Amino acid sequence: MPRINAIEVVDVRFPTSATLAGSDAMHPDGDYSAAYVVLRTDSDLAGYGLTFTIGRGTDLCVLASRHLADQLIGRDVDELPAALGDIHRQFVGDSQLRWLGPEKGVVHLAAAAVLNAVWDLVARRAGKPVWRLVADMEPRDLVAACDFRYLSDVLTREEALTMLEQQAPSRAERIEELSRVGYPAYTSGPGWLGYSDERLRRLCREATAEGWQAIKIKVGANIGDDKRRLAIAREELGPGGTLLIDANQVWDVPEAIAWVNELAQFAPLWIEEPTSPDDIAGHATIRAAVAPVGVATGEHTHNRVMFKQLLSARAIDYCQIDSCRLASVNEIVPVLLMAAKFGVPVCPHAGGVGLCELVQHMSIVDYVCVSGRLDGRLLEYVDHLHEHFTAPVVIDQARYRLPEEPGYSARMHPEAIATYRFPDGAYWRGALERR
Amino acid sequence: MPRINAIEVVDVRFPTSATLAGSDAMHPDGDYSAAYVVLRTDSDLAGYGLTFTIGRGTDLCVLASRHLADQLIGRDVDELPAALGDIHRQFVGDSQLRWLGPEKGVVHLAAAAVLNAVWDLVARRAGKPVWRLVADMEPRDLVAACDFRYLSDVLTREEALTMLEQQAPSRAERIEELSRVGYPAYTSGPGWLGYSDERLRRLCREATAEGWQAIKIKVGANIGDDKRRLAIAREELGPGGTLLIDANQVWDVPEAIAWVNELAQFAPLWIEEPTSPDDIAGHATIRAAVAPVGVATGEHTHNRVMFKQLLSARAIDYCQIDSCRLASVNEIVPVLLMAAKFGVPVCPHAGGVGLCELVQHMSIVDYVCVSGRLDGRLLEYVDHLHEHFTAPVVIDQARYRLPEEPGYSARMHPEAIATYRFPDGAYWRGALERR
Repeated sequence: MPRINAIEVVDVRFPTSATLAGSDAMHPDGDYSAAYVVLRTDSDLAGYGLTFTIGRGTDLCVLASRHLADQLIGRDVDELPAALGDIHRQFVGDSQLRWLGPEKGVVHLAAAAVLNAVWDLVARRAGKPVWRLVADMEPRDLVAACDFRYLSDVLTREEALTMLEQQAPSRAERIEELSRVGYPAYTSGPGWLGYSDERLRRLCREATAEGWQAIKIKVGANIGDDKRRLAIAREELGPGGTLLIDANQVWDVPEAIAWVNELAQFAPLWIEEPTSPDDIAGHATIRAAVAPVGVATGEHTHNRVMFKQLLSARAIDYCQIDSCRLASVNEIVPVLLMAAKFGVPVCPHAGGVGLCELVQHMSIVDYVCVSGRLDGRLLEYVDHLHEHFTAPVVIDQARYRLPEEPGYSARMHPEAIATYRFPDGAYWRGALERR
Repeated sequence: MPRINAIEVVDVRFPTSATLAGSDAMHPDGDYSAAYVVLRTDSDLAGYGLTFTIGRGTDLCVLASRHLADQLIGRDVDELPAALGDIHRQFVGDSQLRWLGPEKGVVHLAAAAVLNAVWDLVARRAGKPVWRLVADMEPRDLVAACDFRYLSDVLTREEALTMLEQQAPSRAERIEELSRVGYPAYTSGPGWLGYSDERLRRLCREATAEGWQAIKIKVGANIGDDKRRLAIAREELGPGGTLLIDANQVWDVPEAIAWVNELAQFAPLWIEEPTSPDDIAGHATIRAAVAPVGVATGEHTHNRVMFKQLLSARAIDYCQIDSCRLASVNEIVPVLLMAAKFGVPVCPHAGGVGLCELVQHMSIVDYVCVSGRLDGRLLEYVDHLHEHFTAPVVIDQARYRLPEEPGYSARMHPEAIATYRFPDGAYWRGALERR
């Protein structure tokens, strides 16, 4: 009976702004970072989770994660599987902390980090990857672990149970299929805004040679640059390839419509984050005005109530859940269920640091347990920072292979922590001295 | 030419949970608190601001406020009036910090605290209360100080300027009127959820004797209790009095509709926060189903984009801006303009600690500069914690008197800080010893 007896939360920052990997129209200089949570036990077992950030303010998520994780000290690991729903409600419903959200911003990101570590711990104890832990759960237990508060006008618990039960008998077939063919994906690696035309072309060419048929390009800073860059990407992809574009929230609604219609000549499948992530009505307006270009959003959609509205208002064509923005599996599964109900494909946000590792589990859960569909689904992939993880994603012919290691795949190598811990890791001490 | 040369940010917590003042169905045990910001200069002049919290997590707002306020070190106070718009955009648009929101949660609360201190400092330097500072600004300068990003589909800068210019010639008349009659208000003091029936009746009776004709009662924990308590309040108010009810987000949408319709017999003017503050569509559904009871919300409406949607979707009858949730005057004035455009009265959220002191300025700005109307307007009042402020609100015959002291009225007495600073103030050290 291992017990949680210590908590570590680390501020880890990777100096990605130096290479412009990750640069976009809204975030020109991100340092991909994480509040990294370790739940230690009195045995060798530990749980590892994180929330993704892009530099300044990671310390806020670290402090908030400590406030939440400290509440787990003393808990018996074997009692966690039955307590997943209660722990989630304890974190998001804290009668004083919730004033700082509720269910948004720093505290909610921290809840994601700590709950990700809890799911990781439960999965490691069971000797399973998180996707398989979920796929092995009885529908009623999965419903009990989830948070349906504020959703009942669109999705009741009973309806969720029925949906999960319908897919349960055929789960094994879909797992077998995925283990054979992998999960379809696209790459965002070539298209960062800070890259030169030459670099963009070279990276697109390398990507298509590796089998990628779908590539995402950042847009929104300058319309002339966008046209030139999309022409390059379309040329390298060929007319049959899938081009995705991403504006990272830079536009007001009328500007988004005009700009996207200018870029429609390059036939993008979707425009991602065309405006404020809070603007549900704005997304619906844009969607109606830019069709057949689809609208995608979600990496900044802060909770299930916002997804409920985006989906029920028919404001989006693609639902981009994020394992570090929503409060872990407990909140993601209800969003997967609502997306399935409205027939909207889930195409998670990934990249960052550790996001590919985490969200692959949720896409597999979507296919195996919830939607039972792969059509229109594409999981994001970015080819950096994976070397810092002990069980990095495996990509083969532009598809994710099923992760087989126990846990949620977010454990980092101790050397990565020692080097990039902020501000006292070897890299950052060196950076200060170099100044 | 005074310059900002030091920053203080203090975690101040008042032990209100001990008396149940402030208790509601969602927050049974709040300790009314603040991240309190002081911008020191090399002269006697200083700027004072705060964001309101309810206990745990105030330290997060303190840390975030330090990150923002530190950026002001070295700034010349006399350059601030022309830089108000730029400072706001610098805070809410920080390319790394914005990942933690954007414009919501801890970082946005911190932006409110620091910007409130900036406006206070500018007003003190000018020797004016903030409401008069704003009322003396040229419409074009006020527009330049405000943030209209993401609003242009509903309100353009040009439209805002036209609206402000229309009211400008008659500002002086309305100031004269308010200085004569004060601003209309209601009291929430009697109706906290944790109070006994006897206490509720006594406090309602005292309130009506003091001239209060509008009283707010917390509901939503138990329908039987609600009916009994509302019967008492209605009895004390009489049939002509204004009864307001507040559920503090406890219901799902269908539950809200059923519950409010049960309570309609007591003829409340509005139901406040019937469900999740993020659920714009839910508020619209509830509003349609509970009329003639109106729907009010806003104290947790985290930014102008959310208010844009609540207003344009006709989801609310009363717009409850909060001086510590929105990022100060820069974001509140655009919301006042949108509310005026849609004909929705602004009835700010107050109470807490310091909120009455702050929001009174915004209601005055609404009347003098924006809407030019008082009909349907009621400013919240709660009769506690004012003694800690150097220029507390003045209420006379259930109306706010115009504040005349320079600044934004959020400066606390040094003794209050020394006593209630957490965890090392005299009160909290004593509390730890008493344990």
